[in-house]
Amino acid sequence: MTPSLAAKPTGTDRLAALSAERYRQAQHLGSDWNETIDTLLSHRSVRSYLPDPVPHTAVELAVAAAQSAASSSNLQAWSVVAVEDPERQSRLNAVAGNQRQIAQAPLLLVWLADLARPRAIAADGGSAGEGLDYIESFLLGVIDAALAAQNAVVAFESLGLGTCYIGAIRNDPEAVARELALPDGVFPVFGLTVGFPDPAQPAGVEPRLPQSTALHREQYADGARARDLTGYNKALRSFQAEQAMPAIDWTDQVRNRIGTVEALKGRHVLAAAARRLGFPLK
Amino acid sequence: MTPSLAAKPTGTDRLAALSAERYRQAQHLGSDWNETIDTLLSHRSVRSYLPDPVPHTAVELAVAAAQSAASSSNLQAWSVVAVEDPERQSRLNAVAGNQRQIAQAPLLLVWLADLARPRAIAADGGSAGEGLDYIESFLLGVIDAALAAQNAVVAFESLGLGTCYIGAIRNDPEAVARELALPDGVFPVFGLTVGFPDPAQPAGVEPRLPQSTALHREQYADGARARDLTGYNKALRSFQAEQAMPAIDWTDQVRNRIGTVEALKGRHVLAAAARRLGFPLK
Repeated sequence: MTPSLAAKPTGTDRLAALSAERYRQAQHLGSDWNETIDTLLSHRSVRSYLPDPVPHTAVELAVAAAQSAASSSNLQAWSVVAVEDPERQSRLNAVAGNQRQIAQAPLLLVWLADLARPRAIAADGGSAGEGLDYIESFLLGVIDAALAAQNAVVAFESLGLGTCYIGAIRNDPEAVARELALPDGVFPVFGLTVGFPDPAQPAGVEPRLPQSTALHREQYADGARARDLTGYNKALRSFQAEQAMPAIDWTDQVRNRIGTVEALKGRHVLAAAARRLGFPLK
Repeated sequence: MTPSLAAKPTGTDRLAALSAERYRQAQHLGSDWNETIDTLLSHRSVRSYLPDPVPHTAVELAVAAAQSAASSSNLQAWSVVAVEDPERQSRLNAVAGNQRQIAQAPLLLVWLADLARPRAIAADGGSAGEGLDYIESFLLGVIDAALAAQNAVVAFESLGLGTCYIGAIRNDPEAVARELALPDGVFPVFGLTVGFPDPAQPAGVEPRLPQSTALHREQYADGARARDLTGYNKALRSFQAEQAMPAIDWTDQVRNRIGTVEALKGRHVLAAAARRLGFPLK
């Protein structure tokens, strides 16, 4: 959403261009273009930021968008910590493996599955909040946090800001909890870097698998898998070349990422960490 | 986003109105209005639908938006089943406790944490995909599915459609898996009803807790809890009255929802169900 003196393309042609960028193969998307659809389909993960701070009004708008997302049974079982202090960011970055985009981003948001409030409300009424002890309630908090964060991402992008999710804070949730003074029953789900994209390092739109692999009709069908993967490996190779990234087939990336316990980078003990943070996970 | 002959308000005044509707108390949101922010802040859960089908192009656009959301390590560990067959919908609705909005909605989307594809890719390369056996990978699929679904919701709403999340399909994930022919390693995270809102039954904007309870600065702080809850109980009471809903304090709703195992409506055995569906949850 960079401002430009030239008129921005709209309508069917713009949708076709967005579709070509995302899928790198034929995918019909109709003619129902609007600004919101444009923002959504233009998403890219931004890993190079200008040093300018994120305006506080942008954070307030993004959190209002986050709070406007649906919440399971309206429990609002999430919250978020905005970290701007460079030293705190740096200590959190150590958990995430010292990523360049965290070192560079003026703002790091840490999204939390937050069962502390319902637990306290139950206690106020003399109840132990037994339902919170189950893995279902942990999931509920994680889902609430994810829906909220994604709305914030869309709001930030509509304002010309860029973001990148940081799953690696789950490498050591207890260290993150200590750093952010999280009470019992609050779990850090992921981070999100936010800032103005550095125009000297423009991020590309990452291609995705064909829509036919994501959308099933009436029942699950995976017949097209082998054909789709060959084409997708090619699409991703051309994206990597454009972005000066190391060349690797997606299928090899997937194997490397999920093939071993070591590749989880500490997250194989996440269940034990969550239990110590106040989620019995029954 | 209902079309209207009158000019739609924009800018600072519109933001103030959206803030007043969402918070029912003072919350400054600045002046950075745009169409996307408007769509996000206007969200309401729609539970009354017209019988008109959802255009296929709208589903394609929403799934393109969903695929445009970030995905952890680009694993794309989610997929979605679109259910339009009324009989299949009705059988799924039995799992969810026979909800009116499911009976009425022309489209039910079931969002899936999908580790079947990475598992198959690992197997193709002679790997067991050991990393997939951990609760971390289950979470990763759930988060991927949630980010994708929320983008789809925003896309649908920008097109004038309404939605409602259905967490109650987790009341019996194995029944849902059978109905949708889900392979091993695929878990139904939530449903989503989609359709054109019935203008005779307009949905209101549900008030949320003050932003100060959701947004923490640098470290977690919950000092304002007691004061915030009194005000919020009042805000929700007035919303209930406007929507002809039963009057109940939010704090009592929370206690009822999480106070007992019975209130989980079967979801206390979710971990065992997930294990039988191919998620060891180590």
